[in-house]
Amino acid sequence: MPSAENRQIRLAARPVGDVGPECWEHASVPAEAPGEGRFAGRTRFISLDPAMRGWLDDRPSYLPPVGLGEVMRAGSVVEVTESNHPGFQVGDLVVGTFGVQEHVVSDGRGALKIDGTAAAPSVYLGALGMPGMTAYFGLLEVGALKEGETVVVSGAAGAVGTMVGQIAKAKGCRVIGIAGGAEKCALLTGELGFDAAIDYRAEDVRKALRVHAPTGIDVYFDNVGGEILDAALACLAMHARVVICGAISQYNATSGVQGPSNYLSLLVRRARMEGFVVFDYVSHYAGAAREIAGWIASGQVRVLEHVVSGTVDDFPQTLQMLFRGENTGKLVLELS
Amino acid sequence: MPSAENRQIRLAARPVGDVGPECWEHASVPAEAPGEGRFAGRTRFISLDPAMRGWLDDRPSYLPPVGLGEVMRAGSVVEVTESNHPGFQVGDLVVGTFGVQEHVVSDGRGALKIDGTAAAPSVYLGALGMPGMTAYFGLLEVGALKEGETVVVSGAAGAVGTMVGQIAKAKGCRVIGIAGGAEKCALLTGELGFDAAIDYRAEDVRKALRVHAPTGIDVYFDNVGGEILDAALACLAMHARVVICGAISQYNATSGVQGPSNYLSLLVRRARMEGFVVFDYVSHYAGAAREIAGWIASGQVRVLEHVVSGTVDDFPQTLQMLFRGENTGKLVLELS
Repeated sequence: MPSAENRQIRLAARPVGDVGPECWEHASVPAEAPGEGRFAGRTRFISLDPAMRGWLDDRPSYLPPVGLGEVMRAGSVVEVTESNHPGFQVGDLVVGTFGVQEHVVSDGRGALKIDGTAAAPSVYLGALGMPGMTAYFGLLEVGALKEGETVVVSGAAGAVGTMVGQIAKAKGCRVIGIAGGAEKCALLTGELGFDAAIDYRAEDVRKALRVHAPTGIDVYFDNVGGEILDAALACLAMHARVVICGAISQYNATSGVQGPSNYLSLLVRRARMEGFVVFDYVSHYAGAAREIAGWIASGQVRVLEHVVSGTVDDFPQTLQMLFRGENTGKLVLELS
Repeated sequence: MPSAENRQIRLAARPVGDVGPECWEHASVPAEAPGEGRFAGRTRFISLDPAMRGWLDDRPSYLPPVGLGEVMRAGSVVEVTESNHPGFQVGDLVVGTFGVQEHVVSDGRGALKIDGTAAAPSVYLGALGMPGMTAYFGLLEVGALKEGETVVVSGAAGAVGTMVGQIAKAKGCRVIGIAGGAEKCALLTGELGFDAAIDYRAEDVRKALRVHAPTGIDVYFDNVGGEILDAALACLAMHARVVICGAISQYNATSGVQGPSNYLSLLVRRARMEGFVVFDYVSHYAGAAREIAGWIASGQVRVLEHVVSGTVDDFPQTLQMLFRGENTGKLVLELS
């Protein structure tokens, strides 16, 4: 039997600004057979994350950049099709950083077998995966959230933002989300139970924050940077915590990152701004996942996914949806 | 006997950019006599501090702005000339926020009697005053300094900077100062015992930081903001603390504050940037002053003062020295 073809998306050129089609190579190689102690799997779901933009730049960061010619790094859920590994059996669903390709071979390191009956497999890329962990540890550890505080989150309709707001509500806080467009805002205050939503495309964010957070922001969870970060800095409560999770408004900037000109609010408000990388909390993921799963089971947290069906060849254009704000909730590519 | 004349400097107009002579009114009023429970004093030393620039702007901050027509707010040392207050006697030296004027009357609130034999009176405006407290609590409480760490301070030859570096040395740290000019840098590494100094007027600060702090900065104490803050952010060690004390490079900016475009280093380095206001630590001043006085006595901390002799009418032009970087150590106006 001839081996199956493994379609892959590789990094062909580093982006300058937007990540255009010229950055990618669509390649086909024969699918590998798993050696001793390894398993092979077929990709079912591929995660698309804003952090990917940072992985494409050749500069020091929390992970090495994806190399030119390498398969694009991505989290994914694969179904085991052949196994020489005692921990994995044919039919198992496994989540790991397997890359943007149809077929994978793994020695099991960094691979986690998931219980496909507790939640849909794709949820392990979102609410129970990296975005969920990011929201949980960013809010509770870095943000040191306390019951009754006022929380503001930007990129509120995204994979991380939807979780930040809902976790803060579950912890007894007042939550204001900032998102782009009336539809996203209606979703935040409707289905997701946020106390208020601000449409940054239609409203003056700073004025709206003064209305919705009249006593100031205790925890600001920032996914976007730029002018929205500045608006939030102008509205901090005393001893506020600003959690720097990302800066999607700045990732494609070719003229340099816009620094927060209101950073001296940190002084006036005795506030702190702190960054984090979720991987530092990996030894605590299991406990967090249990707590989030409990909230999902009780209905306190709703899982919001934006699933695009297609092939790995659809990865490049699907990724661009993130930077255009076209997704609501966790963006996932489901391979048909 | 006709009462003495009290010469005062009052705020006449709010500055736009530089604090020019048009901002000040030079007034004369009769010196007040102290009523029951009050004392009168003659001003001996007036403190000049970068924070004064912020007090002139009409916007919410940690203190209300100085009102138009009001005597300019300033710390000073006065000698008691007449007293109806049981706690103060003629001849006592007292430090407090008495304003830029020759004669003061006080009910004693916020006034601290100083021991003029332990240190020169002006030292209570510097090393044992607000700048010393700012350095101490900023470094040890906000910066959470630990022995053996690498500390970088900007505005290193100023009142706060000279104390930050010397306190960090006393705590067993490696210290790098950033200042303007070869003379200031020589003073830092010479008399003050800093491990290295960077002349921001002559050197590429970022490159120099890479040389002098090859393993990264653990605590960066920022007095200046702007490009130097950005250079430091690019050179943080993991879990670094950036202490925001001031931003003298930005105070006179008319085109808006320059935000730190490298703030995403906070994320990559899991670092935090935190602001503070020294007045929050007032209940701990006495202990800090004892520890600093001990270092002064043992020679571990040297007091550096820049004393200008003159009258209150010299206040406006003396204040400008701060923003031109013309002072080395604590800038004080001594009234002759």
